[in-house]
Amino acid sequence: MSGPLRIGMFGCGTVGGGVFEILTKRIKYLESVGVKATVAKICVRNTKNPAVIELVKGHNTTITSKYDDILDDPSINCVVELMGGVTDAKDVVFKAIAKNKHVITANKALIANFMPDLTSLLEAHPNVRFGYEASVCGGIPIIHTLQSSYTGDGIKEIAGIMNGTTNYMLSKMEKEGASYDAVLKEAQDLGFAEANPSADVDGFDVQAKIAILAKLGFGCHVPPSTVPTTGITRIKTIDFEYAKLMGATIKLLGIAKQTKPNSADGISVFVSPVIVPLTNVIGTVHGASNIVNIVSDNCINGAYVGQGAGRFPTANSVVNDIVRLAQTVVPIPAFGSTREGVKLENDYEGRFYVRVRLADGLGIVRSIGAHAEEAGISIDSILQLPIHDRNNVDTVVTTDLTKVSQVERMVQALSKLPFVQETPLFLPIL
Amino acid sequence: MSGPLRIGMFGCGTVGGGVFEILTKRIKYLESVGVKATVAKICVRNTKNPAVIELVKGHNTTITSKYDDILDDPSINCVVELMGGVTDAKDVVFKAIAKNKHVITANKALIANFMPDLTSLLEAHPNVRFGYEASVCGGIPIIHTLQSSYTGDGIKEIAGIMNGTTNYMLSKMEKEGASYDAVLKEAQDLGFAEANPSADVDGFDVQAKIAILAKLGFGCHVPPSTVPTTGITRIKTIDFEYAKLMGATIKLLGIAKQTKPNSADGISVFVSPVIVPLTNVIGTVHGASNIVNIVSDNCINGAYVGQGAGRFPTANSVVNDIVRLAQTVVPIPAFGSTREGVKLENDYEGRFYVRVRLADGLGIVRSIGAHAEEAGISIDSILQLPIHDRNNVDTVVTTDLTKVSQVERMVQALSKLPFVQETPLFLPIL
Repeated sequence: MSGPLRIGMFGCGTVGGGVFEILTKRIKYLESVGVKATVAKICVRNTKNPAVIELVKGHNTTITSKYDDILDDPSINCVVELMGGVTDAKDVVFKAIAKNKHVITANKALIANFMPDLTSLLEAHPNVRFGYEASVCGGIPIIHTLQSSYTGDGIKEIAGIMNGTTNYMLSKMEKEGASYDAVLKEAQDLGFAEANPSADVDGFDVQAKIAILAKLGFGCHVPPSTVPTTGITRIKTIDFEYAKLMGATIKLLGIAKQTKPNSADGISVFVSPVIVPLTNVIGTVHGASNIVNIVSDNCINGAYVGQGAGRFPTANSVVNDIVRLAQTVVPIPAFGSTREGVKLENDYEGRFYVRVRLADGLGIVRSIGAHAEEAGISIDSILQLPIHDRNNVDTVVTTDLTKVSQVERMVQALSKLPFVQETPLFLPIL
Repeated sequence: MSGPLRIGMFGCGTVGGGVFEILTKRIKYLESVGVKATVAKICVRNTKNPAVIELVKGHNTTITSKYDDILDDPSINCVVELMGGVTDAKDVVFKAIAKNKHVITANKALIANFMPDLTSLLEAHPNVRFGYEASVCGGIPIIHTLQSSYTGDGIKEIAGIMNGTTNYMLSKMEKEGASYDAVLKEAQDLGFAEANPSADVDGFDVQAKIAILAKLGFGCHVPPSTVPTTGITRIKTIDFEYAKLMGATIKLLGIAKQTKPNSADGISVFVSPVIVPLTNVIGTVHGASNIVNIVSDNCINGAYVGQGAGRFPTANSVVNDIVRLAQTVVPIPAFGSTREGVKLENDYEGRFYVRVRLADGLGIVRSIGAHAEEAGISIDSILQLPIHDRNNVDTVVTTDLTKVSQVERMVQALSKLPFVQETPLFLPIL
């Protein structure tokens, strides 16, 4: 960078206000490490918003509701986009780049869905820098770390708890034996979960995040809509009881990994509740916290734990992008190098946990065994907790290494059997 | 940086060989992200070392045993120092800076002990960049993270397991109930611990590391020799039994924290085995792994977990410095800003675990209570596991918040009592 950053900020809610507060409160320290950055203009829908007016009081910051007041201002060299969504936010980000302004955004949906377009646009504007640390796991410097600390390393697997709401819910279910419905209601009452909780509980939030991390880790663009995604809505208390029997717990994970060990030819990316051994660091992260765990050639295993969301953790990530922009000059490729020919395989391999709810009777184990065999699946173990209700027995089968398509085939076949009460639930085992 | 990096490497053992391997193996990827770096010369004691000759085969790298072959070579713009020690290594590093060469080093003793001199020298040579990621917790990007991701944040506490050997030993003692002597012998047989294990078990390795992190986190130079340091040699199996009773475990930690919560006026820095609750992420890191946990205003709690040592994790950290040097141009202050007037308080405050070995008898609790009161200490609890040998009873007292000097006073007084069998052991509680 040459000269100070003059920032135009779009959106000034929870995160934007936090960014403004940090930049003003820490101004002396920031300047001492070479970071000169001021928010020159803030664009919000309602320019009379008292919170925004109070925020900028005493500062030389203009409030506007017109996008072009920022986009057309040649004195503004950096746009911070915190509006969210992929309509107006997309316009703002693309126009800002076209006008050679640096862009910092927390917008995971925008990045995950338009990464190829953004890459082309950034290639056409080589002096523009693009920061998106806050888009994945606010407060955890996972984007910068992947961009800078694994350059000489070879990544084998990225797996993480990247949604605090669902981790809070699963932790509650595990600890208190509470039902899914009860913990969802509690999370909604506490404001952790939305009235429509789909983005969290159906795994779409994690889907966008793992798509972003997969590109940085493996050089392969992953359209989020192609990522097999299962949420937590079917997880029951009984699953935690079985997980405990296995020395494990259940976490909603986003995973991107080499399909075959030590082969960079193909990667598998998926979102699912996963059986996680308690000896794995991922299994030790409870409550609303997030973790990203990276398995690699040089560093072997590295884990990054933090809040993942919230005003100041997320704002801190935005500020980290501002700091990096101010301190560095070479445009580090925003989305890492692209490796051609990496095959994206949605039919991922793993060991699986399959819970079958059935009415107890004769010949069940034989029948399950036959359907596993037909799907080409080798069974590793059959688990059975003490039976309370013979008409609703939850039996668990764990498999050896198999493809998810084979498990799906087995599950479909099982669900048609007369003694099977509902479509069996399957979860990969970490 | 302008132009490619031509590196002169001092020392080519485990880590140096790893650096060379990574730079050559990953050359294409590194160039694709703007990093051009070659090792032009390697300085080793024995130029006939077959491992080094084999390593450089097919590469345009000169092997020398003369320091000046690198230091006087104007075509070499970066020195990587991996010799260790503070005699010749110090000469090499200081001369390289004086000759305006960038320096990357893994030498924690050199940095911790000569940070003020290095700071002055670097100020006198403003174009020189100094990287030392590999000096603390190899494989964990903790130096870069503290330099770059907490710029807008305010750090309250840095606490970490920063020595794999002792964490391996303590984990073994906890899990298997093995004695200190047995696990030390095993660690030595496996090559984890040195024949003279003092640097590890007496805490000096961690002392240097926490001194370095304290400067980055709090802006205050901490001479390692002033850091109160207790090793693990007095930890017994019984301490793990009491820790378990408290829902905790024991970890050797380096800690740097605000002496008073939310006050940047003073910091306490110390190394000690610490009673760590199992609910704290630090308590979940077992075996030879390392963790650094950072409590801060914005990010609240962030943990960084990794190997901490070993050929490729440490070499990866060296490469990360090379990458940063190649990709950035503004000299980020190597040791962060310096904050004047921060008081370094060695008489740190905390809650303490005090184990007293005594011969059972009358009036003991009253006597311990009286000595606690005399030292101005409020007792939180008295713990007593079932007694096997009435002449060697290990009783534990936990205290409310108090100063370490008060605990030392109490311990000295207790050790003079006729029924006390040895100087009581005290550990802070996290």
